[in-house]
Amino acid sequence: MALTDAQQQELAEAKAARFETRRPTVPALEAMLFEPIPLLDHGFIRVIDYMGDDSAVVQAARVSYGRGTKAVSEDRGLIRYLMRHWHSTPFEMCEIKFHVKLPIFVARQWIRHRMANVNEYSARYSVMDREFYIPAPEQLAAQSASNRQGRGEVLAGEDAARVMDLLRQDATTAYDHYIEMLNEDESGAVMDPGRQGLARELARMNLTLNTYTQWYWKTDLHNLMNFLRLRADAHAQYEIRVYAEAMLRVLEAWVPAVSEAFRDYRLGAVTLSAQMLDITRRLLAGEAVDQAGTGLSKREWRELMVMLGREA
Amino acid sequence: MALTDAQQQELAEAKAARFETRRPTVPALEAMLFEPIPLLDHGFIRVIDYMGDDSAVVQAARVSYGRGTKAVSEDRGLIRYLMRHWHSTPFEMCEIKFHVKLPIFVARQWIRHRMANVNEYSARYSVMDREFYIPAPEQLAAQSASNRQGRGEVLAGEDAARVMDLLRQDATTAYDHYIEMLNEDESGAVMDPGRQGLARELARMNLTLNTYTQWYWKTDLHNLMNFLRLRADAHAQYEIRVYAEAMLRVLEAWVPAVSEAFRDYRLGAVTLSAQMLDITRRLLAGEAVDQAGTGLSKREWRELMVMLGREA
Amino acid sequence: MALTDAQQQELAEAKAARFETRRPTVPALEAMLFEPIPLLDHGFIRVIDYMGDDSAVVQAARVSYGRGTKAVSEDRGLIRYLMRHWHSTPFEMCEIKFHVKLPIFVARQWIRHRMANVNEYSARYSVMDREFYIPAPEQLAAQSASNRQGRGEVLAGEDAARVMDLLRQDATTAYDHYIEMLNEDESGAVMDPGRQGLARELARMNLTLNTYTQWYWKTDLHNLMNFLRLRADAHAQYEIRVYAEAMLRVLEAWVPAVSEAFRDYRLGAVTLSAQMLDITRRLLAGEAVDQAGTGLSKREWRELMVMLGREA
Amino acid sequence: MALTDAQQQELAEAKAARFETRRPTVPALEAMLFEPIPLLDHGFIRVIDYMGDDSAVVQAARVSYGRGTKAVSEDRGLIRYLMRHWHSTPFEMCEIKFHVKLPIFVARQWIRHRMANVNEYSARYSVMDREFYIPAPEQLAAQSASNRQGRGEVLAGEDAARVMDLLRQDATTAYDHYIEMLNEDESGAVMDPGRQGLARELARMNLTLNTYTQWYWKTDLHNLMNFLRLRADAHAQYEIRVYAEAMLRVLEAWVPAVSEAFRDYRLGAVTLSAQMLDITRRLLAGEAVDQAGTGLSKREWRELMVMLGREA
Repeated sequence: MALTDAQQQELAEAKAARFETRRPTVPALEAMLFEPIPLLDHGFIRVIDYMGDDSAVVQAARVSYGRGTKAVSEDRGLIRYLMRHWHSTPFEMCEIKFHVKLPIFVARQWIRHRMANVNEYSARYSVMDREFYIPAPEQLAAQSASNRQGRGEVLAGEDAARVMDLLRQDATTAYDHYIEMLNEDESGAVMDPGRQGLARELARMNLTLNTYTQWYWKTDLHNLMNFLRLRADAHAQYEIRVYAEAMLRVLEAWVPAVSEAFRDYRLGAVTLSAQMLDITRRLLAGEAVDQAGTGLSKREWRELMVMLGREA
Repeated sequence: MALTDAQQQELAEAKAARFETRRPTVPALEAMLFEPIPLLDHGFIRVIDYMGDDSAVVQAARVSYGRGTKAVSEDRGLIRYLMRHWHSTPFEMCEIKFHVKLPIFVARQWIRHRMANVNEYSARYSVMDREFYIPAPEQLAAQSASNRQGRGEVLAGEDAARVMDLLRQDATTAYDHYIEMLNEDESGAVMDPGRQGLARELARMNLTLNTYTQWYWKTDLHNLMNFLRLRADAHAQYEIRVYAEAMLRVLEAWVPAVSEAFRDYRLGAVTLSAQMLDITRRLLAGEAVDQAGTGLSKREWRELMVMLGREA
Repeated sequence: MALTDAQQQELAEAKAARFETRRPTVPALEAMLFEPIPLLDHGFIRVIDYMGDDSAVVQAARVSYGRGTKAVSEDRGLIRYLMRHWHSTPFEMCEIKFHVKLPIFVARQWIRHRMANVNEYSARYSVMDREFYIPAPEQLAAQSASNRQGRGEVLAGEDAARVMDLLRQDATTAYDHYIEMLNEDESGAVMDPGRQGLARELARMNLTLNTYTQWYWKTDLHNLMNFLRLRADAHAQYEIRVYAEAMLRVLEAWVPAVSEAFRDYRLGAVTLSAQMLDITRRLLAGEAVDQAGTGLSKREWRELMVMLGREA
Repeated sequence: MALTDAQQQELAEAKAARFETRRPTVPALEAMLFEPIPLLDHGFIRVIDYMGDDSAVVQAARVSYGRGTKAVSEDRGLIRYLMRHWHSTPFEMCEIKFHVKLPIFVARQWIRHRMANVNEYSARYSVMDREFYIPAPEQLAAQSASNRQGRGEVLAGEDAARVMDLLRQDATTAYDHYIEMLNEDESGAVMDPGRQGLARELARMNLTLNTYTQWYWKTDLHNLMNFLRLRADAHAQYEIRVYAEAMLRVLEAWVPAVSEAFRDYRLGAVTLSAQMLDITRRLLAGEAVDQAGTGLSKREWRELMVMLGREA
């Protein structure tokens, strides 16, 4: 993630600026503004702008003339109430904008969250950087035997070495040929003046899916939490989960009361189906219940037992 | 639009606050923050918060590390290019939040713009204020004879007086009975302790559609311009158009370059159908063209002649 | 809900038609097509069109070339899996369209569900019908003492009679004056040729919020279930809940497997917060737990006890 | 685009089925149902399902009890009126679902249209097919010298041959290594039982962006036209434009009146900015106008002259 001198200067200027505003301001988030949080081998997120704070949620819920806040404890209580009862509109009143650098295969998952605004670096218009994601050795997992979309144990020895070699080599070869076809290098300088380069919009098809891209991504607090609930989950693919986890830290700095309610009522919460609830009640009443006859599949039964702390 | 003392104080506090921020800040819009712009007889809009400025559009379009801006003239040119070619995503990178007070029948039109975030004052939860929209005499228009959803000439004399009386009287009666059914007044004080009040969620159904409501409304710059293109149009109903026109002034203070491009390429622009374009070309080539045989309806022909400055 | 002769004939023709199609077809829903299901005093829903069935969910989840279905039990299992794990996109592959007649104050709640397509009868363009919602006596509830947005016990005697009178009288007066201001009756006939009628877009503001309106409303299966989860809930206002409950019956006829999964994993399900889950585990482990020190508010504690079947 | 026997049979079964329905049915579209329309070298679109027809637009605009149609000419007139005046909601009342096979770099452009429902083949869950897009020789264009995101003249001779070789070779190598890393072939059979395969969610990152993927894509008629307006445009990249052009033919079969209005008021239409309109009026009035002093950039001036038929 080496920035050019020009990019370094752009960053430094953005960080040095100070303005006076009457808008709600969050010092803990101001401190993080513009600074890239490095992720994976070449990726990052950095907060570019934001609007609103914990009080903006309260203010909108109360349709107030001013900040709308009362005692801190009352505001916290209201935020928890709104979260618990699945109110969404007050949380839509806050907005945040990130600059993200991420591998294309991660970008393809991410973009499925439609309630967001995106401007991506255009490979029709510009030449892509020579940067690809190569997993760290401890992330080189085998296919899970039990879960068709999960990972099993970590590859080792020759198997791991071979995979590493292939990933590096194919990405590099594909990128070298991309540049050759374009007949211009990363800086845009023509290489062989006697040759015509292939159109950028065509040449890009030769890149591999671990090539890094970047975008501006803006969403509201409600939709950010939807993203985080799915992507910070243990079942999310590791390579997108690290982005979600970094955003959880941003959330905590930005809207601490909302963040706390989100952890309690979403991230750490469980949903019991009608059948699961019935079983839980029977267990609490002292009844011995086993899977047969409950209507739960074996998998659901196992999930329930884990939830209730009855099984590892 | 008389505010209570508590509301006045909330407003004053919001306006007095000053914070330091590293976020892009627009002094001309800061100067307008929180201050109600009065509209109709009891309505208003006031800007509560905003995110981004002209440069944020440029920055996202260029996926830059800093502000992304170059010479002012280049930035202006890029913004005009984006607007002309119907790019939408860079304009989605700015966001604005309003507090709006408006008659319910206007709110019903407004809410049809779905790409926005809304928190409305809840008449299930709270008692509505005694405020109704009564048109100014010069707005008391007859049904248009030529346009099924338009206004004709202004009513006068007894006709006007009768309408005014009816509107005032029915709104007042309905509101008085609303309060009577609730058995509590606007301040929430119980009126007759010997009686039970009707549930607020039921009593509200007795109010007339000119009763004022209020909400927080937040949208991005792209969708704000969609709203303005339709609602600041001469064919929009007067009662919503005044809100749109006030927002046009906010737009100009907030993002002057976008605002200028919007006026040139949207508000002041016209669309010529394939047939209309063909006729225009023939007229320019000196051909005499009349409606018959052009495939245009009489109405379309008239619209075209007005556009081209050939007819009043 | 008396239809005109012309409307009756339109309905009869729609119901009599039979076409041949290669599209998935659901006989149980075909049987309901076009037929109004009466709700409240003058309202209804009727299904106008639909697309997809249980198999369309499975087909999209499997990205299949044909129906994508395997054994019925496997399909049911997949649908339950998708619902349990909050997959949303396969459910978006089915679509349904309703014609709905409903009081305006209900329409104002309903329209807040933005992920839907709506065409409403236009009071700018046409004259509204003389139909208002008047609650049945058993729905005439007092304001709840404990819940600021709920109902308490049913009003009786003089209190009830007075409310009924006021609602009927104000709606009628407002409507009569609406017609007088328009100077045209429901059929569009001019009443007093010597007078100009007020513009329809203005006159409508005199109507009360219990006036009936109607619209075409179309949404996908995922968003329909979001609507139903909130509006068929016991905390939803009765006047919208009856619409949601009728739609639950439509859901069952249309997509029985999805409907069953929806009841088990959404309608009949409960969410336990991190703290609630911890308490449940401790109770199951035989520990005596009481509210103090759990971090739960009294209200949350009571809610948990009710969920777990420990309290009425 | 060779289908397996199982897929062929799925297709044949879908096409052979006939059901009775009371829903609006479009014979010309029924005839196209399920049949793939081949595009590029291995891609296709095929219509899977649809809802509504020309009359459904009219019916919703009129909020009718039956089909809502009057004379064909009146319906056509209403549809043209709605299109001309940018009404969107009546067009949202029709819905269509496609199964699409397309290169990943095309899918990345396509997915930016957010108002649609998508289920994509999952490379976390399944093994991707060995199919990549290789441009036909006449599509192997050089980078445009004048347009940073366009194509110039077609490459020939050695330059072309070299590009073809590179594209084929890198895609093949990357795919071969993908399979090697997975340690399972396209049919899912394990290759070397002594080795563990890399997780599918990781191995996929080695594929090139011209690899084909597939998805179910569903949208409403309004958003389909938004897609077509941008992607059937001459400035759209060829590889997505062929998909849009095939969809234009589907549109014509499905909703002929809407399709005609769309061609006249969108595809074949032009927008004149305030300045362009002013110039056009002056030209029509016989004034000699040249670029200097008009406020138009050279590029805009050239665009205007082309529009008005004054220049090639």
